[in-house]
Amino acid sequence: MSRRKRLGKLIPKKASKFQKKMGKAPGTITYMGQREGGDSVVNILEYNEAILNEHIPGDIDAIVAHKEVPEISWIDIVGISDEVFIEKIGKRFGLNPLVLEDIVDTHQRPKIDEYEDYIFSVFKMLYLNTEQEIVYEHVAIVLMDSSVLVFQEMDDDVFKGVRQRIKSKSGRIRTRGADYLFFALLDAIVDNYFVVLEHLNHKIENLEEVVYDNPTPEIAQEIQQIKKEVLRIRRWIFPVKELVSRLIDTENPLITKDTKVFLRDALDHSLEINESLQIYREMSMSLMEMYMSNMSNKMNEVMKVLTIMASIFIPLTFIAGVYGMNFDNMPELHTANGYYYVWALMIALFIGMMVYFKRKNWL
Amino acid sequence: MSRRKRLGKLIPKKASKFQKKMGKAPGTITYMGQREGGDSVVNILEYNEAILNEHIPGDIDAIVAHKEVPEISWIDIVGISDEVFIEKIGKRFGLNPLVLEDIVDTHQRPKIDEYEDYIFSVFKMLYLNTEQEIVYEHVAIVLMDSSVLVFQEMDDDVFKGVRQRIKSKSGRIRTRGADYLFFALLDAIVDNYFVVLEHLNHKIENLEEVVYDNPTPEIAQEIQQIKKEVLRIRRWIFPVKELVSRLIDTENPLITKDTKVFLRDALDHSLEINESLQIYREMSMSLMEMYMSNMSNKMNEVMKVLTIMASIFIPLTFIAGVYGMNFDNMPELHTANGYYYVWALMIALFIGMMVYFKRKNWL
Amino acid sequence: MSRRKRLGKLIPKKASKFQKKMGKAPGTITYMGQREGGDSVVNILEYNEAILNEHIPGDIDAIVAHKEVPEISWIDIVGISDEVFIEKIGKRFGLNPLVLEDIVDTHQRPKIDEYEDYIFSVFKMLYLNTEQEIVYEHVAIVLMDSSVLVFQEMDDDVFKGVRQRIKSKSGRIRTRGADYLFFALLDAIVDNYFVVLEHLNHKIENLEEVVYDNPTPEIAQEIQQIKKEVLRIRRWIFPVKELVSRLIDTENPLITKDTKVFLRDALDHSLEINESLQIYREMSMSLMEMYMSNMSNKMNEVMKVLTIMASIFIPLTFIAGVYGMNFDNMPELHTANGYYYVWALMIALFIGMMVYFKRKNWL
Amino acid sequence: MSRRKRLGKLIPKKASKFQKKMGKAPGTITYMGQREGGDSVVNILEYNEAILNEHIPGDIDAIVAHKEVPEISWIDIVGISDEVFIEKIGKRFGLNPLVLEDIVDTHQRPKIDEYEDYIFSVFKMLYLNTEQEIVYEHVAIVLMDSSVLVFQEMDDDVFKGVRQRIKSKSGRIRTRGADYLFFALLDAIVDNYFVVLEHLNHKIENLEEVVYDNPTPEIAQEIQQIKKEVLRIRRWIFPVKELVSRLIDTENPLITKDTKVFLRDALDHSLEINESLQIYREMSMSLMEMYMSNMSNKMNEVMKVLTIMASIFIPLTFIAGVYGMNFDNMPELHTANGYYYVWALMIALFIGMMVYFKRKNWL
Amino acid sequence: MSRRKRLGKLIPKKASKFQKKMGKAPGTITYMGQREGGDSVVNILEYNEAILNEHIPGDIDAIVAHKEVPEISWIDIVGISDEVFIEKIGKRFGLNPLVLEDIVDTHQRPKIDEYEDYIFSVFKMLYLNTEQEIVYEHVAIVLMDSSVLVFQEMDDDVFKGVRQRIKSKSGRIRTRGADYLFFALLDAIVDNYFVVLEHLNHKIENLEEVVYDNPTPEIAQEIQQIKKEVLRIRRWIFPVKELVSRLIDTENPLITKDTKVFLRDALDHSLEINESLQIYREMSMSLMEMYMSNMSNKMNEVMKVLTIMASIFIPLTFIAGVYGMNFDNMPELHTANGYYYVWALMIALFIGMMVYFKRKNWL
Repeated sequence: MSRRKRLGKLIPKKASKFQKKMGKAPGTITYMGQREGGDSVVNILEYNEAILNEHIPGDIDAIVAHKEVPEISWIDIVGISDEVFIEKIGKRFGLNPLVLEDIVDTHQRPKIDEYEDYIFSVFKMLYLNTEQEIVYEHVAIVLMDSSVLVFQEMDDDVFKGVRQRIKSKSGRIRTRGADYLFFALLDAIVDNYFVVLEHLNHKIENLEEVVYDNPTPEIAQEIQQIKKEVLRIRRWIFPVKELVSRLIDTENPLITKDTKVFLRDALDHSLEINESLQIYREMSMSLMEMYMSNMSNKMNEVMKVLTIMASIFIPLTFIAGVYGMNFDNMPELHTANGYYYVWALMIALFIGMMVYFKRKNWL
Repeated sequence: MSRRKRLGKLIPKKASKFQKKMGKAPGTITYMGQREGGDSVVNILEYNEAILNEHIPGDIDAIVAHKEVPEISWIDIVGISDEVFIEKIGKRFGLNPLVLEDIVDTHQRPKIDEYEDYIFSVFKMLYLNTEQEIVYEHVAIVLMDSSVLVFQEMDDDVFKGVRQRIKSKSGRIRTRGADYLFFALLDAIVDNYFVVLEHLNHKIENLEEVVYDNPTPEIAQEIQQIKKEVLRIRRWIFPVKELVSRLIDTENPLITKDTKVFLRDALDHSLEINESLQIYREMSMSLMEMYMSNMSNKMNEVMKVLTIMASIFIPLTFIAGVYGMNFDNMPELHTANGYYYVWALMIALFIGMMVYFKRKNWL
Repeated sequence: MSRRKRLGKLIPKKASKFQKKMGKAPGTITYMGQREGGDSVVNILEYNEAILNEHIPGDIDAIVAHKEVPEISWIDIVGISDEVFIEKIGKRFGLNPLVLEDIVDTHQRPKIDEYEDYIFSVFKMLYLNTEQEIVYEHVAIVLMDSSVLVFQEMDDDVFKGVRQRIKSKSGRIRTRGADYLFFALLDAIVDNYFVVLEHLNHKIENLEEVVYDNPTPEIAQEIQQIKKEVLRIRRWIFPVKELVSRLIDTENPLITKDTKVFLRDALDHSLEINESLQIYREMSMSLMEMYMSNMSNKMNEVMKVLTIMASIFIPLTFIAGVYGMNFDNMPELHTANGYYYVWALMIALFIGMMVYFKRKNWL
Repeated sequence: MSRRKRLGKLIPKKASKFQKKMGKAPGTITYMGQREGGDSVVNILEYNEAILNEHIPGDIDAIVAHKEVPEISWIDIVGISDEVFIEKIGKRFGLNPLVLEDIVDTHQRPKIDEYEDYIFSVFKMLYLNTEQEIVYEHVAIVLMDSSVLVFQEMDDDVFKGVRQRIKSKSGRIRTRGADYLFFALLDAIVDNYFVVLEHLNHKIENLEEVVYDNPTPEIAQEIQQIKKEVLRIRRWIFPVKELVSRLIDTENPLITKDTKVFLRDALDHSLEINESLQIYREMSMSLMEMYMSNMSNKMNEVMKVLTIMASIFIPLTFIAGVYGMNFDNMPELHTANGYYYVWALMIALFIGMMVYFKRKNWL
Repeated sequence: MSRRKRLGKLIPKKASKFQKKMGKAPGTITYMGQREGGDSVVNILEYNEAILNEHIPGDIDAIVAHKEVPEISWIDIVGISDEVFIEKIGKRFGLNPLVLEDIVDTHQRPKIDEYEDYIFSVFKMLYLNTEQEIVYEHVAIVLMDSSVLVFQEMDDDVFKGVRQRIKSKSGRIRTRGADYLFFALLDAIVDNYFVVLEHLNHKIENLEEVVYDNPTPEIAQEIQQIKKEVLRIRRWIFPVKELVSRLIDTENPLITKDTKVFLRDALDHSLEINESLQIYREMSMSLMEMYMSNMSNKMNEVMKVLTIMASIFIPLTFIAGVYGMNFDNMPELHTANGYYYVWALMIALFIGMMVYFKRKNWL
């Protein structure tokens, strides 16, 4: 039963999505995720080298006002299931309807689209929750001239470090533009992929441990789960390297040359992550192979026990059977030591078989 | 027997095709599908922002007349087995004979060809019928200046939503040109791929459930069926992403820049679908692997039962056999408690074997 | 033994080739096939829209004469084992020695080479003979200004339809140039690939049928044969799509723009064939997988029967053995109902085992 | 337990890395390796054709001084866990903070970045330690106008030969620039890959030997270890060929045309190494296949012994059982030679079975 | 033991190479092969259309003299283990030290490097020796203006045909330049690949034959050997097609346009060889699969025999056991025909089991 649930999580139920969406025009804003209910909460960090303000704006006008200020504004919108609210925000910020559709489409594959005044991107944040389960959270980031809009599904995210650096003035983030903030968020997302991969690595190592000692069918299931998890993660992570690489090549003035140097670093990390995923993939395949070979070993052992027991005692039983026959004329039965000779024969046979199996290395 | 049929469906019988076609000149119009008989039914939707007319024209002249009107005309031809009719239509609309050949060739792989006055495209509509079986329906779409010709095999299709949007004036479809209608149809086709994939996903999940509990040979067959279904679907879906991408890059004036923004969205979806198919492919391979490993498990279990039973009782039977021998001189037989000692020995052996197997973790 | 032969056919014996050729200069004309003996037979179709003549020329001069006539000449040379004759023809038509070498080299992979005055191409015709075996026939086609030279190994070929269309004036062939004839021949070759693939498809479906019901070792052999046949066919078919695509892109004046439209159609077909081959490949792999899994099933069944029989009767035999012992003091033996109690015990054990196996789902 | 450790080594523990790094700004210098503690030791070789000086500088000023001298300086910094020191050095040499981050990031994949005044590169040195274990040592090399900075983790390295050639004036190294030194170091790294691969090759050959004679589960584990080792090595070696190739194509004046000729040689070696790795990969897969097939063989043998023993003695025991029955009326029992006839029957059966198994080739 | 050796041959022992080379400067000339000892023997063929001279020069001066003559000189140096000699020759002919290094490096992958005055190439000659073993012989060819230098390891080679053609004036070789000689040598190398592949093909066919009838573990080993042989051959042959293709595209005046036509032919052959290798690869994988499936078959058969014997006789033995019990009160024992009824029961059981197994198709 609990497995049922696990599977459920791995494969996004698209049913709802397409039942909701079928027949609607493209550009219709329909939230696709399972984290429904609750209002969107908006939090704004406004900063430059000198100033730092944090706002929780009361209404949309208060939000949009931040678009115009000269400081860098990080407008963080948590909760995207309220489609009406998202649409309003989107219109006020001049976002394309297709962009709005993607903001709430939690199945959207990672992408970066350049529009005239802004760069729109979608990623999947991967992180471990307190129960050490992998959480997949959809996040959309819009980079504008002096502000960054972040749309995320839940309160939890991977941006704590970035917030801290802004507040504590550590690093160079306070001295740079919106594009550096955009990079810092992207970098935080990519860095968390490493944490998740490390978690996966530990899981695989533990399975490796167990598969040698005790290859139960449950282990096989867990190996298959790992394989699926790798497939799933790969889906969200794989396109990132391509996207970052395109960002580096873009001539869009929103991305300064200074920031591109840092993006190259993020590209490096994406490549590294993809290589690791590839290795985990092959390792999980090897695990399954190992499992099968250990199963064969166990079977071999079982068969050997059977064969040894049967090969030793069946002939002995036959001999006993022979002298259990009731023929009138069985001279051996009437000799004084016949019984002892038969025991001798049986013991000799027993020893002979033992030696035979020893030689065959079965004992 | 019913499997026979299923297989039949998966692999299009090309026999008829080539018996029909062999030796004929290229450009010969020969219907290749299995939905023969019945006349073609034509239905025309004519609209602009203000007007909406629906016609069921009486003859070909009435159809062709719609080519010239300034409104957008969606000319929907249902039933393509009447080759003579298709040829007449084609000639009147100025279509190339090779195009006509492809319109009725239900084995034609998806393609988009640009001609001087029109863009010709072939796709496969995939949808679920009321028995939840996947239907593969050939559809050819011709985009002209102010009209869209659709040739489809059956009355059922995936365009209901588009019709509704036109009739209810919802969305932007009524305010745009024929190219947007073309996109809307393509988008409807692609969106239905998601529905079919979701159906496949459910099937795979159900098989996953069952393969653990009860790996019967029937399950293996079903897994193979899924693998074939994925192969087949892939064949029709895989080329789509390439085609859409070429449409986006074309400089053909029939496709406006506005519509290309939407096509980029369709491209995104095609990519997503291809990734999903890839994942389903790997999942069905894992399923087969899981099936094999569970089969091995079952075998192991069977062997253990046999080995335990045989290893315990064969030696005991041997002991009983020994004291069933008829030698005159067998002193043990004549002791008062010999029988009880033998029982004690046999019980000790029994317990010893049980402990041994317990330690080996076989019990 | 008959398998021997089948294998022999699949893998061309290159021995002869290289024993013949080793140390000879490149450009040496050596027939590589196994259809030796017999003279070459030449047949010429000369036509334009109005005229149609069929000649069987007496000597080489009569053949070469047709090169100059304004009509389209299809010069069909059947039988290429007479190297001297081929060389003479070649010289008279001005063909490069390397071209002549390829004309008779039945192992030559498909290719298209453009020379100054002609385009030279090699293909493999695949068709079914009357015993429904796949025949591989080497064919070389030379396209010249107003004539097409065809060199083929045997009388049988796939060009019947083309001949008929020329003779019956059906289609556009009589109104077009030599390049259209060239295309028509290529198209006939490609169309026959479909027939052969369909044959393969039927074979695979039949094997699928059988592999479920009766997975004998012979089936495994046949599956492997199919896999090899697919490999072999792939070798000859795979390069075709590349070649056709190059023909479409060439700027050689021998290929008119009109004909290129038709070549695009042939390209489509080549792509389709390659996709089918890929699918057949995966299907034959699945077949083998299925075979192995069915074998495991059978084994499981065998083991279950053994385990059930042994597990039930070995303990019962032990009980019988106990009461067959000859101890003087065995009180049970002398009770009035001991025998019946033992039967009761044995029947109870029997029923217990049956219930146990039923619960395990082994019965 | 010891296996635990081996696994631990294969999969770098990234935990520490990301716990250390999370939330810090990019460009933060954090040592990622496990070779902590100890100060960095700096060793400088300063040479031109005539002069050769070796320095162990006392402080950073003494190091930086060498940047300006006209001679070629090889500044070798051993031990990179002291982040403060690395940062100071980096700043004095004008290195980008991201470069400094990579210098101490032992998980950094091989890379070459060109900056304005220097070329920065990261590689993994692979060599065998005295216990014949493969050591993975991170090394960063910075090529400047007339000096080469090398940052390495440990005292051990693969550069002994280069040092010797400089000191003994052998070869052309003393007559050339810093770029040739850079090449020589790279070449030494690549040459050592061959040594490691050879070691791997020996291991695989030994396993091949053993897998035929004695396919124990431990062998299967070792095969899997080899597969992982190949995966891991591949990760560090695979990117090198791409990097060298880029160096050859660069127009950076730091790399002279003369040195590029030598780099082409290094490229050749990288290609060869990649091919070898590919072959080892396939060989280790074959090993596992071989292991599985040998396991099957052993199982077959076990089963044959069981089947032969059981098939011969079970029927004989049955016959003995029949004549052990206690019916009053069993005429055979009372004949004079019944007992001998039964023996004859049993011997005949025994011989019959032996012949049968002989014919089946099981004996 | 003999297998040991075979393995040893397959995987070149690089130990010696790197022990010899470690720490030496690039460009150091170190012979890497195992055919040490013996002096180099030089043989010179000097020819043009009219003249043909064969020389065995006494010293290096005599060799170098041939560089300047207007005739085409084929300078064939057999035996490359004498590094001093090679170095002298190289210097006199103006060859780059890196070229000299490659001439004696028998592990060098096939390559073609263009230098200012000459084209340097390395290939592997593959041919069968008199024991029908595949010989791998390193050969380096230097194409100069009017001479071709060939460095080969042994007296045996694949150039006999070329020598003969030169001497007998057959073909066009005597009328053409050094580049045609270069092509002729390359062509001879490639042609011999066919002979080796054919040999491989025969081996695979023979194994196919045997694997059906008698799948012993030795067969599995041989299959693995074939797989390795294919891997190894592939390594040397695979790069050739790329090299030839580059030669065709080069603008180097050393290769005339006329010769390029012939090189296109050689390219064709290289492609064909690569395709064949791919097919052999897949065939050897299929062989292993077939082996495993036949092993399963054998196991199945063994299990069936065991199951049939045990299932028939264990119940019968039980019945006999029952009537061997010694209860005082067993009424059946004292009936007149009890014994015969029991026989009837046992025979009925026997027949019943036979019918059951017949129905299951196990007999």
